[in-house]
Amino acid sequence: MLSKNQLKHIRQLSRKKYRQESGLFVAEGEKLVSELLDSGWKADQVYTTLPLQKTPHTLVDLSILKKITHLTSASPILGIFHLPKENFTDVKNNRFSLVLDSIADPGNLGTIIRLCDWFGIKNIFCSPNTVDCFNPKVVQSTMGSIARVRCHYVDLLSLIENCETKVYAATLDGNSHYKESFQNCGLLVMGSESHGISNELLKKIENRIRITSHSDGARAESLNVASATAILLSEIFRP
Amino acid sequence: MLSKNQLKHIRQLSRKKYRQESGLFVAEGEKLVSELLDSGWKADQVYTTLPLQKTPHTLVDLSILKKITHLTSASPILGIFHLPKENFTDVKNNRFSLVLDSIADPGNLGTIIRLCDWFGIKNIFCSPNTVDCFNPKVVQSTMGSIARVRCHYVDLLSLIENCETKVYAATLDGNSHYKESFQNCGLLVMGSESHGISNELLKKIENRIRITSHSDGARAESLNVASATAILLSEIFRP
Repeated sequence: MLSKNQLKHIRQLSRKKYRQESGLFVAEGEKLVSELLDSGWKADQVYTTLPLQKTPHTLVDLSILKKITHLTSASPILGIFHLPKENFTDVKNNRFSLVLDSIADPGNLGTIIRLCDWFGIKNIFCSPNTVDCFNPKVVQSTMGSIARVRCHYVDLLSLIENCETKVYAATLDGNSHYKESFQNCGLLVMGSESHGISNELLKKIENRIRITSHSDGARAESLNVASATAILLSEIFRP
Repeated sequence: MLSKNQLKHIRQLSRKKYRQESGLFVAEGEKLVSELLDSGWKADQVYTTLPLQKTPHTLVDLSILKKITHLTSASPILGIFHLPKENFTDVKNNRFSLVLDSIADPGNLGTIIRLCDWFGIKNIFCSPNTVDCFNPKVVQSTMGSIARVRCHYVDLLSLIENCETKVYAATLDGNSHYKESFQNCGLLVMGSESHGISNELLKKIENRIRITSHSDGARAESLNVASATAILLSEIFRP
């Protein structure tokens, strides 16, 4: 059994402020919890209906997990993990990184983190108003990739101004994504679902890339930000 | 004011069976409703807080819209539209079409419909167990593209067996998507979020395509189905 205070503590981890105060976040599901453990993330508590081999845990009934889940349906395992220490990776490195300006939807951020993991991107730089990557819905939709991709919440304007590599912006005008010769290192900036990249930031970026549509009369005005990121990363990492 | 029966009628349109019985579906939001009207879709009723120029409508308070919305927050306009007549387009045509096997998530289907609209694909062939494209969450996440892309729920096995164009399957093995020379017409088959393409179907498909990952040790096991569709469509429609 968990005490009232323990239940309250776990439920409050759905709030960003409480996650930051306590230095903890929640991950649910066998795959997610085991990927975090395998990648060396430290668990504060693991609640599960099934005995685990190597990890200290508390056996509970599914009814308890139903009370503490942050998702619509409870998994047989819920881990409470320590937030990682901020570990700002210099952007002057020789890799590609992603920059997200004001992404609001948890599912979109989770999908983008999973995409970065697929293409070997280790760092995502997010505007401070981008949804928190340790939001339970984000963690869930990364399908475990949160264990290997780091999100850094920073001032994007100074990041871009001090960046020594090439910076690309995904926009509705600009060069066709089929024709651009992408460099091996640089930054790709993706804008918010509703407003795109902020004007202030866009002014600082020389290379604008447009995803060419192929339409005889088609009229979709834009793509979902995760779809657009998928297309551009596939193009950037073309061998 | 709406009667109790009218309120019940609108709320029941969240259910597939009731949509099919009544031949109606719900679309919410200014952009979505105006795109449907502009594309010639027939409205049965339009409820709105704002007078419209050309369309017959019923003025209501936002409090009424809050009662009848199928989404988490109400828009100032909700339209009830007639379902289109089934209009099965022969696959022996000279275009590319998409095939979806057991896609369960409404957001994924909506995003994929939006992608098809972007790339000029007019027809999607779905397994009967794929989520209904007139589900309110699907309609919403198409961002209006539902007005221009048609989903046909058909037996995929007989579709593939009788197909005279090339058929491609997105799998975790197969040829790299960077290396495949795609034809101008054909079918691209995408599998479910959890199980991929069913074995029965996969056996019938010669051309398997794998999205190449670029990882020094990255470990994402798969991509979100909408992300994978985005990458492959961009590649298929490469000029």
